[in-house]
Amino acid sequence: MSNIYLGVIGVGGVGTAFLNQLARLPNAPKLILLARSTQTLLAPTPAYSPAIPAGDWKAAAESPSLTKSGALSPEEIASYLSSAPGRSILVDNTSDPALASSYPVFLRKGISIVTPNKKGFSSDLSLWKEIFAAAAEGKALVYHESTVGAGLPVISTLRDLVATGDEVTRIEGVFSGTLSFLFNNFAPVSGASNAKWSEVVAQAKELGYTEPDPRDDLNGMDVARKLTILARIAGLEVQGPDAFPIESLIPAELAALPSTADGITQFMTELPKFDEQMAAIKEGAEKQGKVVRYVGSVDVAKKEVRVGLQQFDKDSAIAGLKGSDNIISFYTKRYGSPLIVQGAGAGGDVTAMGVTADLIKVIQRLG
Amino acid sequence: MSNIYLGVIGVGGVGTAFLNQLARLPNAPKLILLARSTQTLLAPTPAYSPAIPAGDWKAAAESPSLTKSGALSPEEIASYLSSAPGRSILVDNTSDPALASSYPVFLRKGISIVTPNKKGFSSDLSLWKEIFAAAAEGKALVYHESTVGAGLPVISTLRDLVATGDEVTRIEGVFSGTLSFLFNNFAPVSGASNAKWSEVVAQAKELGYTEPDPRDDLNGMDVARKLTILARIAGLEVQGPDAFPIESLIPAELAALPSTADGITQFMTELPKFDEQMAAIKEGAEKQGKVVRYVGSVDVAKKEVRVGLQQFDKDSAIAGLKGSDNIISFYTKRYGSPLIVQGAGAGGDVTAMGVTADLIKVIQRLG
Repeated sequence: MSNIYLGVIGVGGVGTAFLNQLARLPNAPKLILLARSTQTLLAPTPAYSPAIPAGDWKAAAESPSLTKSGALSPEEIASYLSSAPGRSILVDNTSDPALASSYPVFLRKGISIVTPNKKGFSSDLSLWKEIFAAAAEGKALVYHESTVGAGLPVISTLRDLVATGDEVTRIEGVFSGTLSFLFNNFAPVSGASNAKWSEVVAQAKELGYTEPDPRDDLNGMDVARKLTILARIAGLEVQGPDAFPIESLIPAELAALPSTADGITQFMTELPKFDEQMAAIKEGAEKQGKVVRYVGSVDVAKKEVRVGLQQFDKDSAIAGLKGSDNIISFYTKRYGSPLIVQGAGAGGDVTAMGVTADLIKVIQRLG
Repeated sequence: MSNIYLGVIGVGGVGTAFLNQLARLPNAPKLILLARSTQTLLAPTPAYSPAIPAGDWKAAAESPSLTKSGALSPEEIASYLSSAPGRSILVDNTSDPALASSYPVFLRKGISIVTPNKKGFSSDLSLWKEIFAAAAEGKALVYHESTVGAGLPVISTLRDLVATGDEVTRIEGVFSGTLSFLFNNFAPVSGASNAKWSEVVAQAKELGYTEPDPRDDLNGMDVARKLTILARIAGLEVQGPDAFPIESLIPAELAALPSTADGITQFMTELPKFDEQMAAIKEGAEKQGKVVRYVGSVDVAKKEVRVGLQQFDKDSAIAGLKGSDNIISFYTKRYGSPLIVQGAGAGGDVTAMGVTADLIKVIQRLG
């Protein structure tokens, strides 16, 4: 294991949590590159030593024994890592689409990829194919558990089902912690909430459960990206996250507001005008004895992917979800009742946990 | 991958399902040994070729090109496998404690183990320690996902949580498909069942959901073995499945009946005498607005393992379980709400799926 080298990009919430986990990992690979948006810290060539201390990189950034540089291009990073005296792994803790589109460059050079970044796996189908072809070519590995459900065992479970010859017929679930929180509070199973939709959104925003612009959650695009990934693993050739219907929860009238601070404020101010629409949806479900939830589903046989509102029986697992939990149900030929995975599907620590667990598996396979 | 050799022991329900999955696996390792209780089929030495066709082993058993033998000792099997011209893996699809106690012999010779057999991991703590020490010594791997929850991702999830530095505080769940079925039908959340306990047991026996002797389910020992395994992975030094309290559902008066056909018949005949006792337990829970379930739990901080009856709120995930499903909840420091895995935890196909998925991982690591 000591002969494995690690480059890490991103020191945001997930990146910081990951570095803390890495620092405590026994037999951790040598951290030789750590990149932030404008700065890159490197172990000096040609020895690729000393390594960067993962738990203490901020202090180490001041040390003269490390090399400092501005932002490097993916090609420069790939070239640096592939010249290290051993196998190397890139951990991409960003959500950068440009970096994701460069994965094939890394993989062809034999650099394995571990990442929670959805962009590489949920954009054009051609990129997905190129990534796995490049991995085969470079005998490199690609692990991306945290792209769906954070650290929950979703990708690995689906891959195991497929690899062992089970037939996955349907996948259904709540894939967004934010939308889970919104609907669990707006339309609880007990029916006890009189909360208005705009109030629940404002509360979620205040608690930091939404993106800075809540429309980035409400547009359903994040859920659509996750469904794209799962559908592809299940064998569907989904062209991209815009190749199937996505029900946006952004009122059409407010979609064009800019993503500036002013635009966001105006969005939140005008959202109450649409409370009646959402109340009608909630009451419609209530009249059927059901609750409304924002879900994603893949029907493998029908080759159908859908993202949007749906009604659920109050005693169903999806209706009973609490807090901001995710739930993912796999319906397969072998499993009479669905195989269900449930729990926190967002947050720095649990997302980083998925990344670290993937890293351990890659190390074991390269080791 | 083509240089990996496989020995398989056991052709019962799980063994047969596994061989069917193996037959469809792309790049499967070469099956060079297949052992039943009294007969062993081998690829002839010294070439270890031709291999045994996994999907068609019954017909192949008649072929003169394979070597036939009576039952071989674990030492003989280990010696045969370790002389193969590549890395080898033993898949133990039995529930044989004697074979399990020989795992160290295989591992020290560099033969990896994949198995759903609980015995090696849930008997004396000394055997557990010896197994993992032998694996380290022989640079061999041990995968046993299907020892808990069959193909459900239970062992792998717990190992990932521990390996990435999370602190598992508590594990709780329904670990027996049989006991799940019994209580979901005896005390459903709807309260609608007037079924007597003995009737539900008889029905489960008829449907093939119990062991031939239902007392092998009702004694709680199978659940205790699973809890022993989970507790050990979570870091507790549990001496064995008899080192903590197990609430047996076998009336003391009927425990001594022999395990013969006559004894089993007598057990089933006398069980109705105890229906009132079970009805009282059910009603006691009902009075609290709860339902009774047979669960296992590990409290890591208190170093406590328990197996037995417990009352649950009707809207809890455990109470809501259906059919013969298992549910396992991991409470950890990182996960605010528990990480839950749920689904079929018994049956040939799904147990074999866990074995096959493990085999793929071992091949990837050896490859």
